[in-house]
Amino acid sequence: MERVVERLSRLPGVGRRSAQRIGFYLLKSPPQEAQELSEAIHAQKASTRQCSQCFDIAETDPCPICADSRRDHQQILVVEQPSDVAMVEAMGAYRGVYHVLMGRLAPLEGVGPGELTIEPLLQRVARERIGEVIIGTNPTFDGDGTALYLARRLEASGAKVSRLARGLAIGSSLETSSKAALAEALEGRRPMGG
Amino acid sequence: MERVVERLSRLPGVGRRSAQRIGFYLLKSPPQEAQELSEAIHAQKASTRQCSQCFDIAETDPCPICADSRRDHQQILVVEQPSDVAMVEAMGAYRGVYHVLMGRLAPLEGVGPGELTIEPLLQRVARERIGEVIIGTNPTFDGDGTALYLARRLEASGAKVSRLARGLAIGSSLETSSKAALAEALEGRRPMGG
Repeated sequence: MERVVERLSRLPGVGRRSAQRIGFYLLKSPPQEAQELSEAIHAQKASTRQCSQCFDIAETDPCPICADSRRDHQQILVVEQPSDVAMVEAMGAYRGVYHVLMGRLAPLEGVGPGELTIEPLLQRVARERIGEVIIGTNPTFDGDGTALYLARRLEASGAKVSRLARGLAIGSSLETSSKAALAEALEGRRPMGG
Repeated sequence: MERVVERLSRLPGVGRRSAQRIGFYLLKSPPQEAQELSEAIHAQKASTRQCSQCFDIAETDPCPICADSRRDHQQILVVEQPSDVAMVEAMGAYRGVYHVLMGRLAPLEGVGPGELTIEPLLQRVARERIGEVIIGTNPTFDGDGTALYLARRLEASGAKVSRLARGLAIGSSLETSSKAALAEALEGRRPMGG
């Protein structure tokens, strides 16, 4: 029991109390249910791997996106996590490919460039004569630091380097926006075509 | 009782049920409390007016912002409501002046240009040789329509017309952003300086 609680409590959003509740639930449930959960977890892990091109998690290598010849392989959107790829794919308007950093630079937590897939990105950009690298790290302190670091490292690559737009989120309002978001929206204001 | 409930239920965020609760609360409370509320409402109304330059609500005309010679009177930020002025002032980084539209164009609700302070804005821009008009309507369907209408009407004025930046809000993440916000952030991506 202690072992399963300890393991469950490592999952994101599962505290020790929830882990204990799940542990007791599994104890009381039919053996088949625990068996099926255990097998599903094992099968998921056994059937997924990291794409050797973009480092996204998929069932095949290369992943279906990297293997899709109808996508624009000269345009790379760099994101922090596999879940970000899923979000952008759900949005549906992006036709290029991805590169998953598997995190963001966080010097205070000991996450440096070597912990991320930055070297493979630089090699990929150099090797494949990439036209545009769109940096899609999160608009946070660490995400901004990572974006600046990547832009600097990509300077000499010849690829155009851009970043997702910042400002007021569509559907929001001035009243519900933070001071920092308002300041960015004002600072980054754009000319309206005459 | 019915009269106070009817009036209270017109206030934003106060439904008929809350209005009844407030009505009963006032019935039960000491006469002095109701009297003071009544006087406070009356005094607020009696002591405020609309600034004849920017149409913000203030205790003086011109309002303290329009009367402040240290602000940049050649730069006008156009917002929908007086509460938007308060938000931008709280942010603290804006040094120009304002123009309050007192709403936004909403053809389906019968709100046309004549219902807003658009003509006074155009006259003000022409008369005072304004350098830049920053359109700060909300990033919503109606706010966007209003922004486009204003940009068109300001075309011939000679003033630079810009709009608050759109995209991912600082501190948010790709995972928590809407599809529409992601699509705008991708579409509006900006070059990162080399």
